[in-house]
Amino acid sequence: MACAGGLRLAAQAQEAASAYQSVDPLIGTGPEGHTFPGATVPFGMVQLSPDTQIRPFKQSYKWAAGYRYEDTTILGFSHTHFSGAGHSDLGDVLLQPIAGEVRLEPGEIDRPESGYRSRFSHKTEKAEPGYYAVTLDDYKVRAELTATERVGVHRYSYPAGEPEHILMDLRSSIYNYEGKVLWSRIRIRKDGTITGMRETRGWAPGRQLYYAIRFSRPMVSHELYDRESPVEYKGFAPPGTTPQEKQAIEGRGLVGVFDFAPTGTPLVVKVALSPTSEENAIANMDAEVPDFDFERVHGAARTTWEKALAVIDIAAAPAMRRNLYTALYHALLAPGTSMDVDGSYRGPDNQVHKADGFHFVSSFSLWDTYRAEQPLMTLIEPESRTSDVVRSLVESQRESPFGILPVWQFQGIETWCMIGYHAVPEIADAYMKGIRGFDAKQALDAMMASADYGPYGYLDEYMKLGYVPIDHDGEAVSKTMEYAFDDWTISRMATAMGRKDIAEVFAKRAENWRNVFNRQSGFVQPRYANGSWREPFEPARAGADSGFTEGNSWQYSWYQPQDEQGLIELLGGDEKLVSKLDAMFDAKVDPKQYADVEDIAGLIGQYIHGNEPSHHLAYLYNYAGQPWRTQERLQQIVDSQYKPTVDGLVGNDDLGQMSAWLIFTSLGFYPVAPASNEYVIGRPFVDRATLMLPDGKTFRIVAEKMSAENRYVESVSLNGKPLERSYLLHEEIVHGGELRFVMGPEPNRKWAVAPSSRPFSMSSPHT
Amino acid sequence: MACAGGLRLAAQAQEAASAYQSVDPLIGTGPEGHTFPGATVPFGMVQLSPDTQIRPFKQSYKWAAGYRYEDTTILGFSHTHFSGAGHSDLGDVLLQPIAGEVRLEPGEIDRPESGYRSRFSHKTEKAEPGYYAVTLDDYKVRAELTATERVGVHRYSYPAGEPEHILMDLRSSIYNYEGKVLWSRIRIRKDGTITGMRETRGWAPGRQLYYAIRFSRPMVSHELYDRESPVEYKGFAPPGTTPQEKQAIEGRGLVGVFDFAPTGTPLVVKVALSPTSEENAIANMDAEVPDFDFERVHGAARTTWEKALAVIDIAAAPAMRRNLYTALYHALLAPGTSMDVDGSYRGPDNQVHKADGFHFVSSFSLWDTYRAEQPLMTLIEPESRTSDVVRSLVESQRESPFGILPVWQFQGIETWCMIGYHAVPEIADAYMKGIRGFDAKQALDAMMASADYGPYGYLDEYMKLGYVPIDHDGEAVSKTMEYAFDDWTISRMATAMGRKDIAEVFAKRAENWRNVFNRQSGFVQPRYANGSWREPFEPARAGADSGFTEGNSWQYSWYQPQDEQGLIELLGGDEKLVSKLDAMFDAKVDPKQYADVEDIAGLIGQYIHGNEPSHHLAYLYNYAGQPWRTQERLQQIVDSQYKPTVDGLVGNDDLGQMSAWLIFTSLGFYPVAPASNEYVIGRPFVDRATLMLPDGKTFRIVAEKMSAENRYVESVSLNGKPLERSYLLHEEIVHGGELRFVMGPEPNRKWAVAPSSRPFSMSSPHT
Repeated sequence: MACAGGLRLAAQAQEAASAYQSVDPLIGTGPEGHTFPGATVPFGMVQLSPDTQIRPFKQSYKWAAGYRYEDTTILGFSHTHFSGAGHSDLGDVLLQPIAGEVRLEPGEIDRPESGYRSRFSHKTEKAEPGYYAVTLDDYKVRAELTATERVGVHRYSYPAGEPEHILMDLRSSIYNYEGKVLWSRIRIRKDGTITGMRETRGWAPGRQLYYAIRFSRPMVSHELYDRESPVEYKGFAPPGTTPQEKQAIEGRGLVGVFDFAPTGTPLVVKVALSPTSEENAIANMDAEVPDFDFERVHGAARTTWEKALAVIDIAAAPAMRRNLYTALYHALLAPGTSMDVDGSYRGPDNQVHKADGFHFVSSFSLWDTYRAEQPLMTLIEPESRTSDVVRSLVESQRESPFGILPVWQFQGIETWCMIGYHAVPEIADAYMKGIRGFDAKQALDAMMASADYGPYGYLDEYMKLGYVPIDHDGEAVSKTMEYAFDDWTISRMATAMGRKDIAEVFAKRAENWRNVFNRQSGFVQPRYANGSWREPFEPARAGADSGFTEGNSWQYSWYQPQDEQGLIELLGGDEKLVSKLDAMFDAKVDPKQYADVEDIAGLIGQYIHGNEPSHHLAYLYNYAGQPWRTQERLQQIVDSQYKPTVDGLVGNDDLGQMSAWLIFTSLGFYPVAPASNEYVIGRPFVDRATLMLPDGKTFRIVAEKMSAENRYVESVSLNGKPLERSYLLHEEIVHGGELRFVMGPEPNRKWAVAPSSRPFSMSSPHT
Repeated sequence: MACAGGLRLAAQAQEAASAYQSVDPLIGTGPEGHTFPGATVPFGMVQLSPDTQIRPFKQSYKWAAGYRYEDTTILGFSHTHFSGAGHSDLGDVLLQPIAGEVRLEPGEIDRPESGYRSRFSHKTEKAEPGYYAVTLDDYKVRAELTATERVGVHRYSYPAGEPEHILMDLRSSIYNYEGKVLWSRIRIRKDGTITGMRETRGWAPGRQLYYAIRFSRPMVSHELYDRESPVEYKGFAPPGTTPQEKQAIEGRGLVGVFDFAPTGTPLVVKVALSPTSEENAIANMDAEVPDFDFERVHGAARTTWEKALAVIDIAAAPAMRRNLYTALYHALLAPGTSMDVDGSYRGPDNQVHKADGFHFVSSFSLWDTYRAEQPLMTLIEPESRTSDVVRSLVESQRESPFGILPVWQFQGIETWCMIGYHAVPEIADAYMKGIRGFDAKQALDAMMASADYGPYGYLDEYMKLGYVPIDHDGEAVSKTMEYAFDDWTISRMATAMGRKDIAEVFAKRAENWRNVFNRQSGFVQPRYANGSWREPFEPARAGADSGFTEGNSWQYSWYQPQDEQGLIELLGGDEKLVSKLDAMFDAKVDPKQYADVEDIAGLIGQYIHGNEPSHHLAYLYNYAGQPWRTQERLQQIVDSQYKPTVDGLVGNDDLGQMSAWLIFTSLGFYPVAPASNEYVIGRPFVDRATLMLPDGKTFRIVAEKMSAENRYVESVSLNGKPLERSYLLHEEIVHGGELRFVMGPEPNRKWAVAPSSRPFSMSSPHT
């Protein structure tokens, strides 16, 4: 992998590479990134990509994206994937082109010839935004993939004279296990269109997905199989019909084989998805890909990406440029479209709804994305995009059987993954930034409904006690910390809307983090309902019943982005914060300590860059008036945690959050507290960058004199005027202008040192 | 049971009983009838009835209706049932009222207190058309049920002061087995409405049914359980929520408990069904039962039944009158409504469609009902009813993935049960009778599509060879015989439509029964594809690979209703037919011979009245010019096969076919060959009867001098003129008038003896 990485570095040393050419979808497909290399347009419903292994549930974590770079065989190409998820699902409608004899089972990995899987070599692979190609060595089939928003387009070039087949395995699924497929259907319509559905009980329970398939050449025959062991009654097709005679089949173990006569021309296959019905899948196909012109679709996908990537014009060292454009690519994959062209979508009540005046999106990895991913979108995407995100969240709340906002939702269905109610800060951040394409009152009501829903995550006890007690919740401390931040964002939005009554309630709740902070230890700690601390306390303890979620007190003690100044006061002053931060970064940690905890990777002491609770920590030195220490830590993190290689992401990309962190950080600022409308200034890692703001304005970042030696910020100016504070306001960015850093070899211990120059905290607000 | 039957006979000896009062829904709930005692309106989608046992699949046959009279406990009341089916499914949305402690499992049958089932006594039972009541002894709850077309209404009177609960078990299902429930949902909406769905893989694969429930009093609490052993991921409700806190749940083992405060007033529960969505279930409820007025709904159901039963005014001996009105009741239960009030329905492609200008019905037990049940409807129901049946069939053909008409379809989904394509004779019969509320050309196309669909039931070989060979089809002879009859009905309809080209093809196919008739043996026999007969041949052989479906050659050798005269010729004359019929009726048969063959019951020699292939056989003496022998056999059958008791049906009622046989036969005629527009005259078993024809005309049957001694037809007159033939024309009935029988003690060996007076046969048509 290092070798492959090296090759890639060499290849992109040619500086002329465009933004599009700088993207390498293979980055992160190695050990921890969980990204996929396949074809998609920005925020596409279809994300069409090779799957290399389908493992039993308990072994699935590593294959969360379907593909791992170290694998040597491809099972086929499926149409839905998460980019960088820690849990997973999807891998819907797997197609495998087969030349010659057809085998109906995937076969063993060390004997690919025992099944339909095929060996492949990375040498034959080509991955670009909106395009992926590979040669399946066992079939000598060249496979090319591209996509529109709702349609995957495959082009398969078979070897001359061989029987040509497409195998579809509706059993295949990422994070698979016995019984995951509840029901499925394959139906061959009179016009040769294949339609069907699959219903699964995976991460999302009872998820239905419909598909439609058309081929550029007529099928000459087909076979429909139900590979499940015999069941009661007679099944869906007339009894006694052969696999060749079946025109449709329903069941739980379906495999279809579609046969074509060799003509010497490639076979183009279009696969449209719909969350609601077969008819809508057909309508989606008709609307987006009416023909079989692979090159047209591929060209359109490329043009779309070129436009999408043009939102930031970056001048940086080649490796960083490659990192950044790939990060931007990964940041533009989710939450994706989850509705039909006519607006039909499936909501969290598992019913079909119609989006009225907005675009329903899903794949909300909110615990991750509220931090930097969605804030980034408010800068580089049109306002309508964020409004669609907010409306999708708020409509989901209306449709939720529990009356609460999404937690971790995809294809409209809730999975209850992770903690908090982080749709709340996403909405508040949008509102505070002046985005108004939604009903603010309805949104605020939805936010409060989530924050007040007692049965969710022990909110009833949180509301009663001011913290979640450890008595029967093993993640009690993390929940308390995150709820308190989310509450603060409600108070921000309520204040802005003139609802002081609400603002006061939630501003008070925003201080709840203090209830789990133990002044004796200087850490947040598990606390019982009776008010006593759980003893003994070990800040490094992570995992089940530790009180923490994917981490420990070393990461969570700093989780009060709304009031870091309050933390400093509790700790006893700036130096206490700095030394405690240093203790965290410089701790000697045996990585084995976290071996059993998924999602913890990318360690710098007890700082864990591979997981989100650490993402704001390097910026906290600014709050203590020591921005040069932030600058040092950022250098340390960027140097060690990102590479333009398949193993270049130290942790799950988490639907763009890891990538958004890098983009913000490289531009020189980061949204430590979404909904504050402030970005904490770090240091740039680009020579120059221009943000193309949605309304035609630009915001330019320049790093003067930056070099390996000149790693400190000497001075900062905004629009030519010195900037003496270590934060930037959202309005200053969207107004357009230039942020200029002058870099130097030594720390500037005078810049942004004064308390008034430090970023926002509840305890010392700027206003 | 004999005792109970005796009691009922005594009770109805009071002659004043109205038609409504004469119906006893408990008739047939004993050994073989498979009828249910619960509440429904005519052709209702909801058929709400107690379920007494849910057995594992292989033991389910006896519980096909959910209820058996000999059982002593009730599990609850579910909303869908088949009346008299041989296979089964349904039992959807089971509710059990519980006073006191709630147990979540049904419990053991010999220890009812171990579960939620309750003991009951028949003494507390009251079953009337549209109404059922029983007392659940273990809870001291009086349960009353009534219904509209799509809504079941329950009224539960709890004992004073006890905690009141409704338990809903979405696992409970008739013909149950592990894994039958694919997915299900319970959702408590903010307004207290409960909605949800269940998807099952029973007889119908992948069947979805949606429901909505409202209570007359507010719930004070609820509990939602998933009783399936733990599954992967976090499920549908927020993790950690208690059963009380869950507002919704999805899964495969769902049980809901709804709690009410005792008020001293009964609890009324409304349950609406929909084949398409929760919203449509609510709409169905709103349209049909906007209030909680149990008595109003009950009164309306009673009025509806009084009108429905008034189509035949019967004067007969008390037991026969009770038999007949109950038969009429059973004949009016299916095929029932299978669409929402807005016309939405689920078709055989498992997609949602909209009925445009017709009423979609389903539960098509066509192998049974084309014989007499649907022909009866053409006399007593408005033409629009038959048109709806035909349009539902034809639309199903358009929506079928296989492009063929329903075989055994319910709730729109095909089960592939039984053989033949008997939607064809139902449609042809309607067309021949002048019913025109459908597109005849489209219908004929649909009929031919079914008859020509090679993969179905070895039709490809049938079309090639002129018969289904025994080589690889164990029901080959039955299929050949039934296909040939169905083909004849196509030729009839095509002729009437002026399509001689089509008529000729299918008239030729109608002779295919001859290809399996062996002149040597005088029986239809299994035959190989190479033309040779399978040896040895044993006409009594039934069961797997016998060549026959639920029977043997003794029943099937006469299955050419289109050409009984042709059979006589092949046999060698009238006397040969008569002696062969006698040999069948008088055969000494050990009933154990059929012990392993389901659906074979009601034996008179080799005549099996409990199953449909025998139903026309007693009428065949007429074809040999010996109608008095038909009269004798009918007496023998009626006396031995029907009683107004719970064990009064000797075989499955088969969605009204057993009942329709009795109605026709008691009126004195029977449709031996549907689509011939002829009814073969037997002898009446009523003193007088008046058919209220849909257009206001009447057709009156009078049996003069009928008594136990006067069991032969002395003479017949139609509208005052002597009728010298042993058949009646459909147009003669619908024209209105009077058919008068004069009965006598001795056979009239001169009446209807001449060949020209015998019923229609292809070989000697009247026209």
